Amino acid sequence: MLSSTPRTRHRRIKENGRTDPADLFAVLAAGQVAHLGVIVDGHPMVVPTVYGYDRERIFLHGSVASRSLLTGPAEVCVTVTVLDGLVLARSVFEHGVNYRSAMIYGVPEPVTGPDDLRYGLRLLSEHLAPGQWDYARGPSGKELAATRLLAVPLTEASVKISDGHPEDGDGPDAALGLWAGRLPVVATWGTPVADPLLPAGIEPPAHITARVGTPVSGGE
Amino acid sequence: MLSSTPRTRHRRIKENGRTDPADLFAVLAAGQVAHLGVIVDGHPMVVPTVYGYDRERIFLHGSVASRSLLTGPAEVCVTVTVLDGLVLARSVFEHGVNYRSAMIYGVPEPVTGPDDLRYGLRLLSEHLAPGQWDYARGPSGKELAATRLLAVPLTEASVKISDGHPEDGDGPDAALGLWAGRLPVVATWGTPVADPLLPAGIEPPAHITARVGTPVSGGE
Repeated sequence: MLSSTPRTRHRRIKENGRTDPADLFAVLAAGQVAHLGVIVDGHPMVVPTVYGYDRERIFLHGSVASRSLLTGPAEVCVTVTVLDGLVLARSVFEHGVNYRSAMIYGVPEPVTGPDDLRYGLRLLSEHLAPGQWDYARGPSGKELAATRLLAVPLTEASVKISDGHPEDGDGPDAALGLWAGRLPVVATWGTPVADPLLPAGIEPPAHITARVGTPVSGGE
Repeated sequence: MLSSTPRTRHRRIKENGRTDPADLFAVLAAGQVAHLGVIVDGHPMVVPTVYGYDRERIFLHGSVASRSLLTGPAEVCVTVTVLDGLVLARSVFEHGVNYRSAMIYGVPEPVTGPDDLRYGLRLLSEHLAPGQWDYARGPSGKELAATRLLAVPLTEASVKISDGHPEDGDGPDAALGLWAGRLPVVATWGTPVADPLLPAGIEPPAHITARVGTPVSGGE
């Protein structure tokens, strides 16, 4: 639904791999926030949430979705989108964006039990902040009991990648003599900002400082 | 649903301004992509889309939503999220993200007629790429006729902003002596990449080059 160029590749993965799941995992690896769509009281609701994943499931914090699931199992849609840049054409009509997006459809299952919760939370944590799971204090039994986590199978997913140039470079609008091209988004991790309550002399660990200046999502 | 700190402010705007709409417009100004939630065949579907807005409506490209609306007017949810950074605490349980998010609920109306379409498209275009509407060739009547645009009123919206520090700096975990703080996301516009079909000697216009290195979303 993002306006995009015809170079858009649309790949649908159903029942474990009718097409290459590598496309799906590339998008999941690049994104940070998923948008979870559920139906609440008959209306759609789209909630941003962090996520983690393994080869078979995407894991999400689940309070809102849990509420919507009180009435029984129901399909959700989980969409992860990375914006890579703008496509600036000679005509307004051909403008668009380059992006990578994955839509996952499935019935979420609550993750329960300390071992499974720990497994899923670790995936969430390590996806966003690799190294933190082993560095920080792990969750206590009480904390695990207070955690709502959902898993959605990755068996049905649709991947779209748009990475094209403007489409009107060989049409009549080329004669307008206007500049056309792409304006990339460059997203990197910034300099760590210490908690104001942190005592002097405690430096950020190497797994954090090593990320500074590196791409958040791969970018263009 | 993003895990966040108690400093999260949750503000709900209903019926034109029960609370400050400035919060909503700040999020819309900072975001580039909206996630549109619709119900299709009884299931939620979440589609990324570019958007524009004025004081009363958010405008979206509408092919998917239009399909879901064939059965009659139905409420949608439009969510715009900006990720500002990670909150790295002493304990895994207190980890989270700082973000700004707006959820808009409403019944979309198709935008029709060349004047209204031009008005809405201009908002979309100028939100993502200010200056391009006047620089590029404007839409023809035929192009306008091929454009599906939807407008959702901004009368019901919920805004969440999380911009806090880790929460465990004054609890027992502070004694662990671990580093804690924030890791910001820094997103800027990169160097324009010319269309390979562009003849030599056509330089990007000032309204594009002036954006290079500037923040995409404000950031932290």
